[in-house]
Formats: sequence, structure tokens, C-alpha cells
Amino acid sequence: MKIIVVGGTGTIGQAVVDELSQRHEVIVASAKRGKITVDIADPVSIESMFEAVGEFDALVSTVGHAHYAPFAEMTSELYQIGLANKLMGQVNLVLQGRHHINAGGSFTLTSGILNDDPILQATSSAMANGGLEGFVKAAAIDMPKSLRINIVSPTVLAESMEKLASFFRGFDPVPAAKVALAYSKSVEGAQTGQIIRVGY
Amino acid sequence: MKIIVVGGTGTIGQAVVDELSQRHEVIVASAKRGKITVDIADPVSIESMFEAVGEFDALVSTVGHAHYAPFAEMTSELYQIGLANKLMGQVNLVLQGRHHINAGGSFTLTSGILNDDPILQATSSAMANGGLEGFVKAAAIDMPKSLRINIVSPTVLAESMEKLASFFRGFDPVPAAKVALAYSKSVEGAQTGQIIRVGY
Repeated sequence: MKIIVVGGTGTIGQAVVDELSQRHEVIVASAKRGKITVDIADPVSIESMFEAVGEFDALVSTVGHAHYAPFAEMTSELYQIGLANKLMGQVNLVLQGRHHINAGGSFTLTSGILNDDPILQATSSAMANGGLEGFVKAAAIDMPKSLRINIVSPTVLAESMEKLASFFRGFDPVPAAKVALAYSKSVEGAQTGQIIRVGY
Repeated sequence: MKIIVVGGTGTIGQAVVDELSQRHEVIVASAKRGKITVDIADPVSIESMFEAVGEFDALVSTVGHAHYAPFAEMTSELYQIGLANKLMGQVNLVLQGRHHINAGGSFTLTSGILNDDPILQATSSAMANGGLEGFVKAAAIDMPKSLRINIVSPTVLAESMEKLASFFRGFDPVPAAKVALAYSKSVEGAQTGQIIRVGY
């Protein structure tokens, strides 16, 4: 398969590339590095990526950010960051990618544990995760061309604990290499409409 | 308690008003009718509502719409309708309402079954529902002033089946009066951060 990994230079993305490139042609796209650069908050940038890649069989997205702040400091405008980037950025990869992907192909997006198991300061991330998961479950049954779509929801990464431990006390972190298996299951398996939770 | 029911002239809203007005002072707000009119997609309109009402103890929202269409016809712009109205419209009721609500008060929002049990043409509604539920779970633990927040997720209403039956084949519809009990539980009970599913 020819597989695009958007965010393939990040911690999860690199592990996904390591896993999938053993058996497939993997094209890395990321915000700043990688063979192809892409800003998922900009539909024009997304379109350029798809034009550069041409036809493909699977897209994995391991990107998307939201604004973290105490709820008392959150504003309607600050929620727009997560909605435009983590939520609609990934959804736009699907909306635009469906015109370039081969029949029978798959999309695999990324949410995260924070809508299921919340922490402080993460209302925007939780909103984006929940929105993505709802979208994926509904889009899966409404897809053209026998396309599939799943979403991976990992807990906090072992590799992130040095920076994030104080926010994630009591969480059992999971190595990126283990999270990468969920993307392999989505891309190389046959399920659709699944929220693949890792490390819950 | 002094309770605002936004959408109090709709099918669910009227049932909520019937239930809560037996024991509380209920103020009905809605898009076109009701004591107070409000457009939840417009923060200025929301602020006018709160200024007209003054201090209150609970807000119930039974409103919010999204665009329904086959996934093949959905565009990034069409998703913005549900994001601005059903999702951020209800979130803005909370963001703006937190400055007017009394300590110990509660917010109760409305999602729906379609992110858990999807139907065709409903990817936008599923996205908004999931986003709302993630927000509510995370906001509940990050609220100031001992405020509570829950969300009611009903299946299709018995009262809507005449119009919607062909979209909801196999669903077991629930009367609005039964759905209204979930809002009573949220407002008059003590739980927070709950997704109260009705008719699943």
C-alpha cells in the first residue's frame, strides 16, 4: 500500500512510520519537516499535499492541537483553535482526501483519552476528541468507494511523561511503539467506524 | 430555583418546562417565541438574555441544530453550521452563563444518540454531540463556584417519528415527557460530568 502519515515526524507518527514502512510505501508529511510539509488548519495546504502525493491507499493522521488552559480562562475564541486544528484539520484531511484515495482505502485519525478520562485544563482537547470520535463513527457507515475510517485514542505517551507527568498523575503511560500497533490494525485490518483505545 | 430553559418552546423543552415548573420558577427562552428570545449562535444575543434574566440557579439547553446530508455532499463549510450552533452555541451558554449563575448552580446541555448509534446523513450531528459530551465531562471537573454540568443524550423522540421514522428504522422512540426526567435529575440532583442517556 501507499500510505500517507500526516504528522509522521512526531512521537506517535515516527512510531507509525517505523511500523508501517516495514511492509508499505510510506510518505511522511508534517508541519515543518518530512518529505512533504502540510498545515492541516489550511485547506489549501492540504490540497497541495494531496496533489504532490497523487493516488494513495491509506492516510494516517497523528496531528492536531488544542489550547490547554483552566476552564475559568477559556473563551469561545480559544475553543476555535482546537476546532480548526485538531478537529476540522483532521476532518478536512478526510473530506479532501476522499477525492484522491483509491477505492477500498482507509483513513485513521487520532483523538486521545481526555474526553473519556478528563484532566484539568483540557476542555478544548476533550471537545475536539469527542467531536472526532462522533464524526468517525457516523462517517464510517456513510462512506463512498468502500472506504474505511477509524480513530485511535491513546492515553498519555511514555515518551511525554517527562514533560507532562504533573498533568497526568495516576495515568499509566504507554510507549509510542505500542500505540503504533493500533494504526497498523486500522490500516492493515478490515474494521471501520472503530474507536481504537490504547492504554485505557 | 430560578431556571432558564433555552429552547423551552420545542418538543423536549416544553416537556422540561412542564416537569420543572411544578416546583421551580422557570423562564422560557427560545429562538422565536417564549418570554425571552435568543439566538444561541450569536454571543451578543446570549448576553442580552442573561442581562434580561439576571441571577439564576440553573440553565437547561434543549436547542442546537446541525446540517443533515449524505457524507458525499458534506463540506467543511457545512460542518461549521453544527459547530457554530449545536456545539459552540450551547458551549457559549455555559461560557457566558458562568458569570451570571449563582454558586452551586448547574448547566444541562443536550446532545443525542447519533454519535453512539449513527444513522446515514448525520455526520455533523454526531460530531457536535461528541464534542459536547467531551466538553461536559472535562468542564465538570474544572468548574468554578461549585457549579455542575451534565448533558442529556436522548434517542429519537416518539413525537418526531411521524416526520423522521424513515431515518430511524429500528430505533425505539421515547416520549419527550420521559426525556424531561433526565433534565430533572441533572438540575435537581447532585451529579456532575454525566452523560445521561435516555432510551438507549
